[in-house]
Amino acid sequence: VKAFGVQLLSTSSLLVFLFLIQLPTMLADSAPAVPLMPLPAHVITGEGMYVIDRNFNVALAGYSDPRLLLARKRFLATLFRETGILFRSEPQANRACFTVLTAGAGNPVQHFDEDESYRLAVNPDHVQLTANTPLGALHGLQTFLQLVRITPKGFAVPSITIDDQPRFPWRGLMLDVSRHFIPVQVIERNLDGMEAVKLNVLHWHLSDDQGFRVESRLFPLLQEKASDGHFYTQEQVKEVVEYARERGIRVVPEFEMPCHVSAWLAAYPNLASGPGPYQIETHWGIFHPSMDPTRESTYQFLDQLLGEMTPLFPDAYFHIGGDECDGKEWDGNPRILEFKRAHGLKDNDALQAWFTSRVQKLVAGHQKTMEGWDEVLQPDAPRDVLIHSWRGPTGVAAAARHGNPTILSNGYYIDLNHSAAEHYLVDPLDGDGASLSVEQKKLVLGGEATMWSEFVTPDNIDSRIWPRTAAIAERLWSPQEVRDVDSMYARLDLISQKLEYYGLQHKSFTGMMLTRMSGEANPRALKVLAEAVQPPVGYAREELKEYDNTTPLNRLVDSIPPESNATREFESLVKAIVSGKASPEQWDCARRLLLLWRDNDAVLQPRLNDSELTSELVPVSHTLSLVAAIGLQAIDNLQTHHVYESTELQKNLEALKAAEKPQAILRLMVVSPVEDLVRAAGAQ
Amino acid sequence: VKAFGVQLLSTSSLLVFLFLIQLPTMLADSAPAVPLMPLPAHVITGEGMYVIDRNFNVALAGYSDPRLLLARKRFLATLFRETGILFRSEPQANRACFTVLTAGAGNPVQHFDEDESYRLAVNPDHVQLTANTPLGALHGLQTFLQLVRITPKGFAVPSITIDDQPRFPWRGLMLDVSRHFIPVQVIERNLDGMEAVKLNVLHWHLSDDQGFRVESRLFPLLQEKASDGHFYTQEQVKEVVEYARERGIRVVPEFEMPCHVSAWLAAYPNLASGPGPYQIETHWGIFHPSMDPTRESTYQFLDQLLGEMTPLFPDAYFHIGGDECDGKEWDGNPRILEFKRAHGLKDNDALQAWFTSRVQKLVAGHQKTMEGWDEVLQPDAPRDVLIHSWRGPTGVAAAARHGNPTILSNGYYIDLNHSAAEHYLVDPLDGDGASLSVEQKKLVLGGEATMWSEFVTPDNIDSRIWPRTAAIAERLWSPQEVRDVDSMYARLDLISQKLEYYGLQHKSFTGMMLTRMSGEANPRALKVLAEAVQPPVGYAREELKEYDNTTPLNRLVDSIPPESNATREFESLVKAIVSGKASPEQWDCARRLLLLWRDNDAVLQPRLNDSELTSELVPVSHTLSLVAAIGLQAIDNLQTHHVYESTELQKNLEALKAAEKPQAILRLMVVSPVEDLVRAAGAQ
Repeated sequence: VKAFGVQLLSTSSLLVFLFLIQLPTMLADSAPAVPLMPLPAHVITGEGMYVIDRNFNVALAGYSDPRLLLARKRFLATLFRETGILFRSEPQANRACFTVLTAGAGNPVQHFDEDESYRLAVNPDHVQLTANTPLGALHGLQTFLQLVRITPKGFAVPSITIDDQPRFPWRGLMLDVSRHFIPVQVIERNLDGMEAVKLNVLHWHLSDDQGFRVESRLFPLLQEKASDGHFYTQEQVKEVVEYARERGIRVVPEFEMPCHVSAWLAAYPNLASGPGPYQIETHWGIFHPSMDPTRESTYQFLDQLLGEMTPLFPDAYFHIGGDECDGKEWDGNPRILEFKRAHGLKDNDALQAWFTSRVQKLVAGHQKTMEGWDEVLQPDAPRDVLIHSWRGPTGVAAAARHGNPTILSNGYYIDLNHSAAEHYLVDPLDGDGASLSVEQKKLVLGGEATMWSEFVTPDNIDSRIWPRTAAIAERLWSPQEVRDVDSMYARLDLISQKLEYYGLQHKSFTGMMLTRMSGEANPRALKVLAEAVQPPVGYAREELKEYDNTTPLNRLVDSIPPESNATREFESLVKAIVSGKASPEQWDCARRLLLLWRDNDAVLQPRLNDSELTSELVPVSHTLSLVAAIGLQAIDNLQTHHVYESTELQKNLEALKAAEKPQAILRLMVVSPVEDLVRAAGAQ
Repeated sequence: VKAFGVQLLSTSSLLVFLFLIQLPTMLADSAPAVPLMPLPAHVITGEGMYVIDRNFNVALAGYSDPRLLLARKRFLATLFRETGILFRSEPQANRACFTVLTAGAGNPVQHFDEDESYRLAVNPDHVQLTANTPLGALHGLQTFLQLVRITPKGFAVPSITIDDQPRFPWRGLMLDVSRHFIPVQVIERNLDGMEAVKLNVLHWHLSDDQGFRVESRLFPLLQEKASDGHFYTQEQVKEVVEYARERGIRVVPEFEMPCHVSAWLAAYPNLASGPGPYQIETHWGIFHPSMDPTRESTYQFLDQLLGEMTPLFPDAYFHIGGDECDGKEWDGNPRILEFKRAHGLKDNDALQAWFTSRVQKLVAGHQKTMEGWDEVLQPDAPRDVLIHSWRGPTGVAAAARHGNPTILSNGYYIDLNHSAAEHYLVDPLDGDGASLSVEQKKLVLGGEATMWSEFVTPDNIDSRIWPRTAAIAERLWSPQEVRDVDSMYARLDLISQKLEYYGLQHKSFTGMMLTRMSGEANPRALKVLAEAVQPPVGYAREELKEYDNTTPLNRLVDSIPPESNATREFESLVKAIVSGKASPEQWDCARRLLLLWRDNDAVLQPRLNDSELTSELVPVSHTLSLVAAIGLQAIDNLQTHHVYESTELQKNLEALKAAEKPQAILRLMVVSPVEDLVRAAGAQ
């Protein structure tokens, strides 16, 4: 028996789409020793394995309740999807195979200070899961599901003992359902994914300029005029909250105020600071409409609405937004200017602080603790107000120094198409946070991935969330020193596969969307192109100003994952070649990839103009071919120690420079590594 | 404008999995002119096309009701999945793009004699759908969805005028949910598929030896002891019935009696003809347990149960099964033998007729019309009893001659892995049926595909139903003279693709299951093998006697569709070669396929023993390689006009003979066409 804290094995996934031309695999296909994400706090591996067959069953010992009974049922259903084994209703082996021993009940309403720890001991003849609360038991069940793999003896889990608990108690995913509406079914499958990676907060961003998404019976114009007809009924809200609770996930609602409120004002213009008229915003950006913080009627309205909404969301926290007020309407309203003078409010920040303070009291009056974005942190903010930082570690540190609990989202903006590695290396206690005192650090509760929905629909939202959010989940659960990016990617591939058994469509969506774009059942050449490009990072697409909320999101840029495994592999091949450490297989592999990319255009090009959705790819496919040809020449030069003529080198570098320019809003990911090859060949 | 009744264009789908090695496409990739399944009764194509954009909307004119409103909503949701277009809630074009004019209401309870006709007129500037009833409108909406395709101008529907109505009024799919339980969600996605191809009856086979699947409040032991815990609550039954009605689909329940009743008898042994004890049957086959037709208590029980069940199913018909009584228990019970003597019942058929006659009166007493399998057709059967023929056209004709309405299922047993072409060419009015009088023919109401569930689970059931059931749907809807198999396959490929937008998993299941079997994210070499094999036809697998109801169905044989497109393409290439009509591209294509199959084993073989589920494929993969090598040699011989030495020819034919033997319950589909090549090369 070998003991270790956290073992990180680095492997490389196969260049899967090259298999048909039977490339030798360039690296050993070894599986990580602990194929878990998030990695547990403590692991001891043992000898042998527990084999799962149709007599497998699960016994609940100790404390039990409906949530645990449902979890047991769901566990067996997921295990069926993982294995295809139909478990007997009355197993022939007359004993429990897997015992779940839960010490006691959880809180009636889940709270972040609940004990989430568990111990999972897998031996060849028995599995024992021990937890203090149902939350720990839920986590342990998910750990077991992740450990299942196919072996020569059938589906099995290797002998292992895991002692585990989270580093941070607040591990969330924010879903913006305002900019594009996200149906309940899509939310629920993502809750399944959250449970799989031990996330425990769904932050439901329910209102913004583009729509108010909850039925109000007191103020029905909110759904009638402040939404485009897409909203959740109160029954659906309850369903989602219950679905989440069953999976150990809290639901924190957010209703933005006093800004990001175009939708509310379209329904109730009396709340506004300006003269109107107002309408639901259909574009993306930051807009002027804001509530009037100076009128009592505003607070009366909010108090009534809070009275209706807070009972729908049992969680202790209530998020009131509060970000990005530009103050334009306040500056333009003489009555508000007068109010500021009369109350000695020196600027709009102070005016917003006045508003926030009033709202905080309303929220508290409904037995909720207020949460808001960085902007709500004001000198006199009560110590229990939770600060949600979109600005970064500095915001987190400032909140903690002020004595307020806080969570981080800056760095976890999964809508911006950054790599899993970039998100993974952001830590709530890095930067400014590292200098906090021990007591202050305890106020840093965790973080949330934020799924802003300008550029997602039910078609592709899963792909923007998964698998990268699993890397963020690991950051928030696992020990701080777990930071090996290669290990993370190796395990991310495995969890990404497992997440398909939870109904997520982050892997299958590309095939569906490429078929739709091309009209072809199996558009292989289009897939080759799709694997060589990535969507733009950051706000590049928003800055095009070409979009509103019904612009179809059905182009190639919408149909590909934020991160291409194929080009990541190619980059690592090039790194090996350039550093002089490449094996013959790696040289060969890089060459074949480049051949594939060079020759793909000849097959793809004649079809691209058959579809409105692929015709914009004419130059992209052409450029890929061109870049790959340059790469092939560079590889030849490197292998034959041939030196470029200087004009040729220059010409190639210029061509690559030109190829860097996005076409069809796509980044051609092959350009940069090919440039590395060319420079290396030029420097011989 | 070109007018035609039904135009059948034959195309060939691409050998898709070969694309990466950039095979020239061997045949033109032309789409069928009328890409519909089922083909409509009358079609006139026009010039131009209607382009769908985000201002598209649908107006309901004339009669409207909640079913039509829901249909409109569902139509737009499906159109979103087909196109990715987010339709504006308030379109900018201030007029209806698509008008649905429905003349009047449908029956409160859908009946097979309802008018299902519709007229769909698509012009470049407007779409008009006209129907007498909501059923016709539902059909027309589905026709429009099938016509949508991507073009250089975007998603569009070509100008067309369709006048359509079904040939048969009863077009069904039977689902056996007893042998393997099928969850509501799976039934519902299959109801969506049924709507897409205009099937209008779900025949729900709810009880059999292996389980009684509906909650009974009067006789709760039926779910407690006559099921393994998997059953539908009465609420779920109502949900399915409502879901079906919304889609223009009737639900006919079947409760088998007096045989196929092991499950009932496990719960209520007093109903039995034998001494027991009884238990739920876990194996497949025909079993002895049967109800005692001689005791009044049997009929009292059935009358009460019918009183509870019939209100759950509003349809006019109630299916009482009645097939495959072996009479063993009756022969072994002296009291029953005495009863037969006393009542002059000369054999067990007569005894069953006595039972059926009693049950028919009970069913009628609950305002239902009885339906049963062939066996319930007895000389004194009332004229309204519907005869469901599992025996064949002779059974259908016998029923019609007797004056009873009748439907056909023989020939539509989709569980037996026959080809779409085989099912397609079975017609209820072929054979004996052809000689019926005009009046008798009117009694032949249609047919039902039957999904017996010995070898399906939620993993793969979609693939056994789809796309082949669409071919059966065409047989039952389209004019009798529509019989062109090549046209059918070309259109089947298109509808198969469209069915993915309805959530069906008949295409995606193979990838999921191969990944599960192998543990590889993209097991390409395993896919190559998977495309060269098919599951056995008929009862070959059942005859192995290796199965019960919890035997895992997660092997390769469970993971592949009943019909491999790749081998069907290879067969057509070989046909062209052997007949001397092959183009150079076809020769090349056949050669490359054989190369792929020959060389795949070298890649696949080393991995097969890593998984219990793939180790049985060791000989299959090896044999594929061997057969492909023989095929390559035959092609060489044909191209070079080289003649085999006679011993060599003999050796090859013997090897092929040996390769025909199923391994791992798989048929290697390459053997027979390779044998054709060898024989052709030998006969030069």
